[in-house]
Amino acid sequence: MSTATIMKYKKMDAQDIQYLRSIVGEDYIFVGEENIHDDYSGDELAGIERYPEVLIYVKSTDEIAKVLKYANENHIPVTTRGQGTGLVGGAVALCGGIMLSTEKMNRILELDEENLTVTVEPGVLLMDLTAFVESHDLFYPPDPGEKSASIGGNISTNAGGMRAVKYGVTRDYVRGMEFVLPNGQVMNFGGKIVKNSSGYSLKDLIVGSEGTLGVVSKLILKLLPLPKNKLSLLVPFQDLSTAIQTVPEIIKSKNIPTAIEFMQGEVILAAEEFLGKKFPDNSSDAYLLLQFDGNSKEELEAAYEKVADICLECGALDVLIADTDERHDSIWSARGAFLEAIKASTSHMDECDVVVPRNKVSEFVIYTHKLQEQYNMRISSFGHAGDGNLHIYLLKDQMDQKTWNEKAGEVFEKMYQKAFEMGGAVSGEHGIGFAKIPYLEEEFGKEGMELFRRIKLAFDPNEIMNPGKLGSNYKVNLYAC
Amino acid sequence: MSTATIMKYKKMDAQDIQYLRSIVGEDYIFVGEENIHDDYSGDELAGIERYPEVLIYVKSTDEIAKVLKYANENHIPVTTRGQGTGLVGGAVALCGGIMLSTEKMNRILELDEENLTVTVEPGVLLMDLTAFVESHDLFYPPDPGEKSASIGGNISTNAGGMRAVKYGVTRDYVRGMEFVLPNGQVMNFGGKIVKNSSGYSLKDLIVGSEGTLGVVSKLILKLLPLPKNKLSLLVPFQDLSTAIQTVPEIIKSKNIPTAIEFMQGEVILAAEEFLGKKFPDNSSDAYLLLQFDGNSKEELEAAYEKVADICLECGALDVLIADTDERHDSIWSARGAFLEAIKASTSHMDECDVVVPRNKVSEFVIYTHKLQEQYNMRISSFGHAGDGNLHIYLLKDQMDQKTWNEKAGEVFEKMYQKAFEMGGAVSGEHGIGFAKIPYLEEEFGKEGMELFRRIKLAFDPNEIMNPGKLGSNYKVNLYAC
Repeated sequence: MSTATIMKYKKMDAQDIQYLRSIVGEDYIFVGEENIHDDYSGDELAGIERYPEVLIYVKSTDEIAKVLKYANENHIPVTTRGQGTGLVGGAVALCGGIMLSTEKMNRILELDEENLTVTVEPGVLLMDLTAFVESHDLFYPPDPGEKSASIGGNISTNAGGMRAVKYGVTRDYVRGMEFVLPNGQVMNFGGKIVKNSSGYSLKDLIVGSEGTLGVVSKLILKLLPLPKNKLSLLVPFQDLSTAIQTVPEIIKSKNIPTAIEFMQGEVILAAEEFLGKKFPDNSSDAYLLLQFDGNSKEELEAAYEKVADICLECGALDVLIADTDERHDSIWSARGAFLEAIKASTSHMDECDVVVPRNKVSEFVIYTHKLQEQYNMRISSFGHAGDGNLHIYLLKDQMDQKTWNEKAGEVFEKMYQKAFEMGGAVSGEHGIGFAKIPYLEEEFGKEGMELFRRIKLAFDPNEIMNPGKLGSNYKVNLYAC
Repeated sequence: MSTATIMKYKKMDAQDIQYLRSIVGEDYIFVGEENIHDDYSGDELAGIERYPEVLIYVKSTDEIAKVLKYANENHIPVTTRGQGTGLVGGAVALCGGIMLSTEKMNRILELDEENLTVTVEPGVLLMDLTAFVESHDLFYPPDPGEKSASIGGNISTNAGGMRAVKYGVTRDYVRGMEFVLPNGQVMNFGGKIVKNSSGYSLKDLIVGSEGTLGVVSKLILKLLPLPKNKLSLLVPFQDLSTAIQTVPEIIKSKNIPTAIEFMQGEVILAAEEFLGKKFPDNSSDAYLLLQFDGNSKEELEAAYEKVADICLECGALDVLIADTDERHDSIWSARGAFLEAIKASTSHMDECDVVVPRNKVSEFVIYTHKLQEQYNMRISSFGHAGDGNLHIYLLKDQMDQKTWNEKAGEVFEKMYQKAFEMGGAVSGEHGIGFAKIPYLEEEFGKEGMELFRRIKLAFDPNEIMNPGKLGSNYKVNLYAC
């Protein structure tokens, strides 16, 4: 099971196309590289390009079931895709075959205010979901930077986002799902129920499984009442390590903010240039950005005043308060543009989405600064200081390809080893996809990877789902499958 | 894979005993029915009795690993047991073999206030954990009625408890675990990290797996700051359905209490008799018991006043406030005694721990009242109105065994069918164990049970862990294994 065999999938032929066309309809199938938009050959970052043989847009659970059953019987690989906003190649069709887009399954099916749930199709965009529930005075807390991602994509990587400090991650908000197994069988796991101890919790396993076990066709998500008040603090510091070392002190004080982000001055400058808008302050080398929410204004004020005091005691230069919606939104929209801003500042980049215990963040960031000097390579970072999830970008700039490949490989290797030593993990929220498989192997070892593989095969014995990713034969030869 | 084969395990012999003795030491091994306390042959309710061949107390991860490796190589079944407070036979050694007690692994290893985690061995009692973290002004929210359960047992069933309405269940508080696979390999899943998207989330699968995949040897649990204020409302109603129909209105109002319990007057009377203590009020047929917590007294008051108004609008006879620690604790300790009180009131009983969407609770309870009349059988219930998890007890009283078996079987069948029609599930928090396997099969069908079985085999290919439970060959013949 552990040896590297080369999967040989069926090459799709006219008969396959004809069958798929009969299921999804003439207008929802695109065949061959020349007819498929190049968006569908990659994602936002992973730097790997591969076209599917066929792109189809499914519109119902029944269509998904029929497509999977056929693919399973004919040994055709299937890669599910939401909005393709991933960063690690998770939705790239490494072995060709069928790309199953859920973009047209974007209906919000039911808001149930008595059970505080919303039922949606997987293609609904995160920003549409958020706007919808907030218009009903309800709250879907997961808040990844990429608001145009689909909720199905968020499920596939167990997306986290800014508010994880207080509210947890996507998995915590999935109450139930309809799920299509690779053989076309439609299953239901969980429901509108709040508790469940009925069999292995497969829904919790499927969240974060990156499309390798089957296809999520419907979701029942948990909502909370929308907090009535929110407020942000922007806190400048002389340097990044002073800023980050403040975070464990905040956590220890038991005043838990909704979000605690750290940012470097240079990233703010890049965001200002990218957006053509000014940030409230850009004069310092490092910042913490904190958000608080709650129903009682008094409680909110007590919490932020306490935290502001802690910041000042720990060396903050100032504490700027954003207590209007406008100022609040302007700061957080700048924060949301960091990734694109860094991307626009260089010729090419690659990322590390490592997560470490939150009291180790400062030590880790200082380590990346050492690597920056040692390898003479620009390394930009920002991230979730409050939950230990860092986004660290290696920038190619003017480097030639060979130097870049060598240096980036060595720097990644060192960063992941450092994270493992600290009790961290490869990915906090972006997933493993194709790009991070070697590091996952370092984290879990042969025994762990074989366990993943047996889980994969329990769902997908013919290995049609998203080959080359989690639980697949991860040494798959890209160009021979 | 789906056909019922009879597992044949090795009967333990002198050599096996000698090896186990060399691992755990002379004082920690008990051999044969005559030397094993009868507590270890059953649990608190399931009504099934079976002695293990050998009872051992493990003291370390290393001992667990050595025992499992040996059992796996020699095909000896292993049943892990915490405090044996289960209700569905989950920790009964159906096929004999080794009973592995974690009672001696009861150390609290580390409190990490910077990461808000506590690291414990699986044998720590829930009440000891709670007292320890609260003495540090921290909070472990899961709050099952049975405070003398071990935390390992709570993990095995994904225990829920009273506070699930606001805080969720055990799984939501497991950040990481050390886990011993049946082959003796020690794995680590998760950690002190807040986010994780690194491979299949096996820790979330293991929570709720009822000891069928391996042995949890260490846990890293998430803590919250301890809320500064709490307060309870005891709300009498003329009848139970009026009481329960109030709950969706409370949820819709977006003032989420920590707990919402419902209780019948007759259960309160039984608890008073059992405890020899008076409840603050026992004159009504039905009650809601609500708890609120929070850091701001103003917010707490605003929330409970709003909810009290809703109760009165919905037909409450009165609203009694318990705002001192003493009154608060007296009400909740009576609530904690319900199960034992009902048990003491009858010759024998069996339970249904069904969970339904919370707006269906009233309809479900009315249905059980109809069954009570139809079958002329006492049916007592209490439970978590706020999260849809009901505890319904069929009481044997003076019935002869044959009538009881027939009637109880029919009533259970009808109740579970009703729950499934409502989008509910077999168990909200007690698990499936041995007693509820047939109903799990009804919920998931052949396809679902086979998927469970393949998951089981991915971890435990020799099927040594807790045979006859989740994912095992569930038609195992008890007396031929």
